[in-house]
Parts: sequence; structure tokens; C-alpha cells
Amino acid sequence: MNELFTVRPPQEALELLLGRCPAPERAETVALGDALGRVTAETVVARETLPAFARSTMDGYAVRAADTFGAAESAPAYLRLCGEVAMGTVPSLHVAAFEAAKIHTGAMLPPGADAVVMVEETNARGGEVEVLASVAPGENVVAAGEDVRAGDVALEPGRRLRAQDVGGLAALGVTHVRVFARPRVAILSTGDEVVAVAETPALGKVRDVNAATVAAVVTANGGVALPHGIVPDDEARLERAARAALDGADALVLSAGSSVSYRDFTARAVERLGAPGVLVHGIGIKPGKPTLLAVAGTKPVVGLPGNPVSALVLAWRIVAPLVRALGGEALADRPFASELDATLTAPVRSRPGREDYVPCTLAREADGTLRATPIFGKSNLIFTLVRADGLLVVPLDQSGLPAGAAVRVIVP
Amino acid sequence: MNELFTVRPPQEALELLLGRCPAPERAETVALGDALGRVTAETVVARETLPAFARSTMDGYAVRAADTFGAAESAPAYLRLCGEVAMGTVPSLHVAAFEAAKIHTGAMLPPGADAVVMVEETNARGGEVEVLASVAPGENVVAAGEDVRAGDVALEPGRRLRAQDVGGLAALGVTHVRVFARPRVAILSTGDEVVAVAETPALGKVRDVNAATVAAVVTANGGVALPHGIVPDDEARLERAARAALDGADALVLSAGSSVSYRDFTARAVERLGAPGVLVHGIGIKPGKPTLLAVAGTKPVVGLPGNPVSALVLAWRIVAPLVRALGGEALADRPFASELDATLTAPVRSRPGREDYVPCTLAREADGTLRATPIFGKSNLIFTLVRADGLLVVPLDQSGLPAGAAVRVIVP
Repeated sequence: MNELFTVRPPQEALELLLGRCPAPERAETVALGDALGRVTAETVVARETLPAFARSTMDGYAVRAADTFGAAESAPAYLRLCGEVAMGTVPSLHVAAFEAAKIHTGAMLPPGADAVVMVEETNARGGEVEVLASVAPGENVVAAGEDVRAGDVALEPGRRLRAQDVGGLAALGVTHVRVFARPRVAILSTGDEVVAVAETPALGKVRDVNAATVAAVVTANGGVALPHGIVPDDEARLERAARAALDGADALVLSAGSSVSYRDFTARAVERLGAPGVLVHGIGIKPGKPTLLAVAGTKPVVGLPGNPVSALVLAWRIVAPLVRALGGEALADRPFASELDATLTAPVRSRPGREDYVPCTLAREADGTLRATPIFGKSNLIFTLVRADGLLVVPLDQSGLPAGAAVRVIVP
Repeated sequence: MNELFTVRPPQEALELLLGRCPAPERAETVALGDALGRVTAETVVARETLPAFARSTMDGYAVRAADTFGAAESAPAYLRLCGEVAMGTVPSLHVAAFEAAKIHTGAMLPPGADAVVMVEETNARGGEVEVLASVAPGENVVAAGEDVRAGDVALEPGRRLRAQDVGGLAALGVTHVRVFARPRVAILSTGDEVVAVAETPALGKVRDVNAATVAAVVTANGGVALPHGIVPDDEARLERAARAALDGADALVLSAGSSVSYRDFTARAVERLGAPGVLVHGIGIKPGKPTLLAVAGTKPVVGLPGNPVSALVLAWRIVAPLVRALGGEALADRPFASELDATLTAPVRSRPGREDYVPCTLAREADGTLRATPIFGKSNLIFTLVRADGLLVVPLDQSGLPAGAAVRVIVP
């Protein structure tokens, strides 16, 4: 029995790989309309102060707050209507003592006024405004510069742009933004038993599921998947194919044969791609232990197990954060986004020193609790994952989880 | 004061709108490599049984289980090595009584054998295999058809395809899949005070943030955003522009002026686009109450408030599920995916009858708890959302939430 493995915990293995990954070098400029989901490659500094002017946040009347002090339904203040502020204009009027100007939400606060009384707390009677409540200075008003000030950092580099980030850029008049190029990830499958998806496999052979799922994970995490087909179980051919695939890519993901002997020659072939070579050979995770992490020159190489479920779990655990890092994303940013907290409905077995990923269904109970029910049976079948809502995680230090335990669920 | 509102709870308002939306009619065929995130428009029936043959899930020895009964480290069973099963081939050998054949993970189980002993529980000595543990029939073997059977429904229509779904299709040899066309959503901004993002607004005016954020929400939910620019506050021009925008689209999202008078003429213009017209005028939500939901013919029309934060909250609450429904997605599928459960670190005020969305930061504590800290200050500023990790939700029936309360957080 040939056991080369020095099994590493998944997070440690990932960090070892990420520690060797270069910062992305390629960047490009995209229009704001194409910026969603891209990663900023520059610090965006606000060139303007927002809002540029004090404006009303309510429909109502612009007033001097002091003129409303003590006003109540039982003792209204009476102000003279001095005009109306038109939307999108600089008001020509001036609010003097005991005067009020009609104003709409978003309109510029006229000079003289320092607050807005909501329309619901007034009665207009001809040229007179009855004010039924007092307002403090600044009430119902956004001051100039309250959102962002010229010179402020609006966005740091490494931010994957969300709808609100795009909105912030729009507000500042940024029509184009510098983003990191999408990382190019070459995908290569190996195995004498593996045939292309379009083929009908002869008995004993299987279709190449992993190229399709790894490409999906790469795409979902902002990368460009470069499929390089299938190589038979031949060490020299694998090395040549891997070298060619890496040539036009920033990283390579292999899905290697599953058995120990195939893993061994995959490791040898990967080792010859360039120093520093293999960093990790075996990860404390189930499924997916026989995984290989390497760096050839500056380019990461991931060797996934051949089993489609193992390969996909490792693609989520290792390839997804790798692609995000190669794409320039600051990974500290929102690590929680794809993980849900749930309550386990049935016990799950594990072993300390191993992170287990168990397919599960999810249901939101009437009391608001999210419940995770493990899908038992052979978990190494791709349709088990198709039927699952997510995968629950048994942490490294647990020997299993009882029913009722709090559990983390990934919903990739 | 002009108050037309019949305020509806958000979910009721959304369901009213969805109830009037037609099922999508347009579908297209895409290659498997382009299918991630698209929504199935057909029932995919498995045309094959998977696996097509019984195969080993371990490296080891194919045996007759009965020959290992009672085997243990202290009392091994001894079997005769009868050969090795090559990967990707139909085995030519036959496992007879008290025989074992070397086998690799994924290889076809040879005739005669009904189980596999893991290599770790054997010792090979020349032509003899020492078996240190017993196996049950079927152990370490996936039976033919255990994953999916020919004629089974592999995927229902209305499924937004994930990596594992793409994998299931690949396993079945499905190279192309019928998906619903992306819904086309026209976006129109109104307001005398609104200028294009590329312009420098004169004092009193603001840039069109909403067209950018709504387009991002439409895109993120699988739609195609069709920007139609900015219309001034003129009822007839708004009606003409809305009619033209709806013409080439499946839905229209307006961001209307924020004040009551502008909302009123927006409602009148929308009403004239066609029956049934306005369904909801006012939603019990903060921010975003002055929202208008309508249907013109069969096409939904959403009128968002002008304030960028209100518009974005409503885009997440109403436009996102609308776009998903127009794209054919079965919404019952995974409603929990973008919602996290957290513990509130500071009290939040609200009012019963209103769903509140409060920007917050998130942090994972050492004990595993996710903590949500509300961002106080003026919440109607777009950079408050830029600085936020998510928005916590105060449910409709609550008058607020105390520190320590369980809270739902959306991370859109």
C-alpha cells in the first residue's frame, strides 16, 4: 500500500496555496453598466462632495426651526407661506423669520431655512401655514457632505462590486471603473475511463462530469474556464497536456483518476511542471481527501479526485476561494456570504481531524428556524447533490453532530 | 394633503403582482457550458441509467462477500488473486469462490464479485490476498442505477441551474438544455432634478443612481436590463416614454419622483398604460413606502421611490423576485438562499405594520455566532449601503427589536 499523504486540514491547505499565489497583474477598464460582480483594481476616491447641497428628505415646508419651538396640535405656530422650491433648481426665494417655503423630497433647502416640517404635521390655509409640531435644526434635511466628501475613499481595491457599490459610483459620476481581469483557469480531466459528455460511454467508462462542474464553479466565482479536454492515464501525456494548458492560463485544475496509483503519477507529472511543486498531497476532508495542491512557477495547480462529488466539494472548498483570490478579491471581505446557520434534524457521524460535507435539504420552520436534514445513502452520487439544497459541514474537531446541533450549511 | 395610499404588506403586495404575471413564453436552447444560472424550461428526463454498471468506490479487491464473513485481523480470510480490473474496460476475468481481483476506484465490478474490500484492510502476498475485515454484499460498490434510472425526472422545469445540476446533466450526456429566455426589464427614471451619471449636476440636481442600481439588481437576478434614460416631470411625456419602453420589454421599472404630487401623476400615467392598471399604491416597508405596483396588459410595472436607498431596498424586495418569476424560476425553490440568521448587537426601533430594512455590518464571533450591528445615522444615503454588509429585517408585526434578538439579514 502506497500512502504518500501528509494530510492537511482544509483551511490550512488553502492558506498554504493562497500564500504562494501572486497578486493579479492584469486589469481592465469597464463601463459602470458592466461592473457588477467585477473586482475593483483601484482605490476610488470621491471627486465630489455628496450631497452637494442640503436637501429635504420629506415633502413639507422649509422653515427656521426656532420659529416652530413649542408648536403642538394644541398650540400651532403660524408661518407666512413665502413660495415653493421647484425640484432641481437653486431656490430664488429666501426664508425669513416666521416664513415657510413649500418643498418636495429631494429639493434643495432654500437659504434662511434650517429644517423641514413634514406636510403631515401642517395645515396650509391660503398664504398661511399652520405648524402642529416643532422641528430641531437639521431635522428632515440631509446636510451637504453627509453621504461622502471629496477626497474620501469611496471604494477600496479588492471589492467585488454589488448593486449598492455600483450606485455609489453612479452618484459620484464614475462612468468607468478599473477592475482586475477575470482569472483564466485551465481545466483538464484525466482517466482512461473518462469520455466527453457528448459521447455514449462504452460499458466500464463514464462521462466527464468534472470538467463541467469545475467550469461552473470557476465561472460562478468570476473566472474564465478554459476547457482542455481529457487525457488518458499516461504520465508523459498528462505532463505535456498540463504544461500546454497552464501556458495560457493563470491556474490549472486537474481532475485526476481516483486510485492511489493514478494519484501518484499525477503528483509526479505536476511536480515536473516547475518549482516549488507539490505543497499539499491529501486534505482532511470527506469527501475529497486525495486532493493535490501545487504551484508551478507562480501558477497554482489543483489536482481534484476523480469522483464527481468529491471533485465538486473540493472545487467549492478550494477552487472557489482560489479563483476569487486570483481575481483580486480581498477574501476577508464577507466570508460569511454563502454560509447559513441551521439546526440539524438527525445525527451525522464524522471523525475528528476531518471536515465532513454532507448533502442536506433545508426547510424554514414556522418558528423561523432553518432546519437541515442530511440526505443519507451513498453520498458520492452526483444526483444526491442535485437533490440537495446545500451541504452541512461537520467541523474538523468534531466526531459527529447530534440531532438538534447548530450546523453550518454551504449553499453554493 | 393628498393620501391615495392603501398600504399593503410587502409580501402581500408582491404576491398580488406575481399573481398577475404570465408564465414566461420565450425559451431558448443553450449549450451546457452556458447553462449555469439559467432556468430550465423543460422537464429533463434521464435517457440512461447511472451508473450503467456496478462499480467500485474504493481501491481494493473485488470479492464474494460470503468469502470474507468472519474475517478479522486476528483471523484473516485468504483469497486467491485472480487478476486486476483495468479502468474503463469490461473485466474479462470472473471472480470465483475464494478469489479476489484487484480493482481501482470507479472501475467496473467483475462478474462473480458482489463487494469490494478496501486495500487498507488487506495484505497482498504474491498470488494471495489476506483479508482482515469482512464486507457485506454491496459494500464499497455503487449498484447500477443507484444514482438515477432511465425514465426518472432528472430536473424539473423552473430550476435555476447550479454547478451540481450542470454536473447531473453532463453525467446523462445532455449537451444542450432548453431554458427560459432572460426577461427584458425596461428601466426609466423620472424627475426634473435628475441628470445622467456622465453629467455634472448643476446645484439642486442629482445624478441618476437608480437606473444603475436597478439594472444591477435585474442582471443579478437573471434579467436583461434595458435602460431608457431620464424623463422630466411631465405626465404626458412620462406616459409616452413608459409606453415605448414597455413595448420591447417584459416589464418596466420606473423610479419616480419622491414627492406626493409626482407620485400622483406617475400613478395616472401608469394607469393609462392599460388594464388592469395600478394594483398597489403604497407598501408597508421602510424605506420605500411610496411604491407603486401595476400591470399593463400582461406586463408588470413597478414604480419605485426616487430616493436611491428606498429604490434599492424595493428593488431587492420586489423587483428581484419579480425578475426571477418572469424568468420562469419556481420561487418556492430555496427561498432562504440569500438570508442569514444573526444576533442583533443593538436595539432597533420600528412600528408594527411595517417591515424595516436597516443597513448593518456583520461579524462572525469566535463562538460561531453571526452578529449584526445596525449602522445608525441617516439611512437614506447610498454610501451607508456601500459601507454595509447587509440589511437586517424588522418583521411586519414587531415594534422594534432589542439587543440580543435573533434577526434575519439579507445580503443581496
